[in-house]
Amino acid sequence: MKKKNAAMVCFSGGQDSTTCLFWAKKHFAHVEAVCFTYGQKHSLETEVARKIAAEAQVPFHLLDVSLISQLDPNCSLVNNAIRMDEDKPADRYPNTFVPGRNMVFLTFVAILARSKGIHHIVTGVSEADYSGYPDCRDTFIRSLNVTLNLAMDDQFVIHTPLMDRDKSEVWALADELGVFDLVRTQTLTCYNGILADGCGHCPACKLRKAGLEKYLSTKKKD
Amino acid sequence: MKKKNAAMVCFSGGQDSTTCLFWAKKHFAHVEAVCFTYGQKHSLETEVARKIAAEAQVPFHLLDVSLISQLDPNCSLVNNAIRMDEDKPADRYPNTFVPGRNMVFLTFVAILARSKGIHHIVTGVSEADYSGYPDCRDTFIRSLNVTLNLAMDDQFVIHTPLMDRDKSEVWALADELGVFDLVRTQTLTCYNGILADGCGHCPACKLRKAGLEKYLSTKKKD
Repeated sequence: MKKKNAAMVCFSGGQDSTTCLFWAKKHFAHVEAVCFTYGQKHSLETEVARKIAAEAQVPFHLLDVSLISQLDPNCSLVNNAIRMDEDKPADRYPNTFVPGRNMVFLTFVAILARSKGIHHIVTGVSEADYSGYPDCRDTFIRSLNVTLNLAMDDQFVIHTPLMDRDKSEVWALADELGVFDLVRTQTLTCYNGILADGCGHCPACKLRKAGLEKYLSTKKKD
Repeated sequence: MKKKNAAMVCFSGGQDSTTCLFWAKKHFAHVEAVCFTYGQKHSLETEVARKIAAEAQVPFHLLDVSLISQLDPNCSLVNNAIRMDEDKPADRYPNTFVPGRNMVFLTFVAILARSKGIHHIVTGVSEADYSGYPDCRDTFIRSLNVTLNLAMDDQFVIHTPLMDRDKSEVWALADELGVFDLVRTQTLTCYNGILADGCGHCPACKLRKAGLEKYLSTKKKD
């Protein structure tokens, strides 16, 4: 029997996917979370994710796709020998780009979802994000949705609630959903593996902080 | 530096992908083979593939994606408790269908290829195959090609030399390529893990045998 109104969330325990998890809980009767290990430097990430999923009372699945980092180790997120780009290079993607990562993640999310009769998939990718990663763009997600449906003769629907939101608007959404404090204090966005407000100087922290300040200043004016 | 005229072949050591491997060797200056383990009942498969790749003098990569069979164990190829469908069921895909398998394989092939500067990918999928697996259809492959290019901002080209060939035509191609005897005696197609002519009664053996007989009778007439 197919479950109705159920969604599987691609979940890392960061600001974006945690906001998506609670967005999904608002819109679907049943929600499950899938988290991936892929050779990240910071194993704290999966523990943070597991804890948030427990607090949200959703089943938590942890899948090991570390193969992906073995295939292309030229990435600072998985290779300690590579120093992370702190600013966006003009001529290439930042070295935090793991080629094919979102495609691998979402394909496994779809396979797992299908085996449980779930056809709605939620991911926190955003085009408004600073990085310009190709696998965060709306065009990629739409193409992937069609490809997944053709691959498995199924009718998946991929939801991207953050696609057009910049970071301040993601904070606004968390606030709307009643999880502003949870997102602020319990999520891990920092590339250097420091919870909540993070290290303050990596690209992810800078982006998160700028978004937070913008949102708080906007809120104050209201 | 990007290699020119190089191809990565999705390779299992079966009749189809072995024929593709030699097709690739004819059309590209440099060829590499990627083989997958995913919890198959028959571990002989990867050893057969390794041996053929050595004979073809191409680099051989073995990737472990056994995660795929853990996600959806309702498949007779990976679950000993399930008896394989010997004939095609009228109302569903045969239980030899591993959902999402070709999508996972080809995505990892693309990631590996890209890390080596290779942009041509070869796969032995065929629409003429009996099974009607959705992830063997031309429409799926074309959609996947676009999605891979969008995911990694790259220009992969997926080649499917067997797409419109039935099994007798695959035997004809092997013969044209000068590897008819190699394919007949060294490949493993049988779902019961028996080399060359196989068990004779599983769907794969029946298909292979019917194609061989058709090709040999056609050849005799010429």
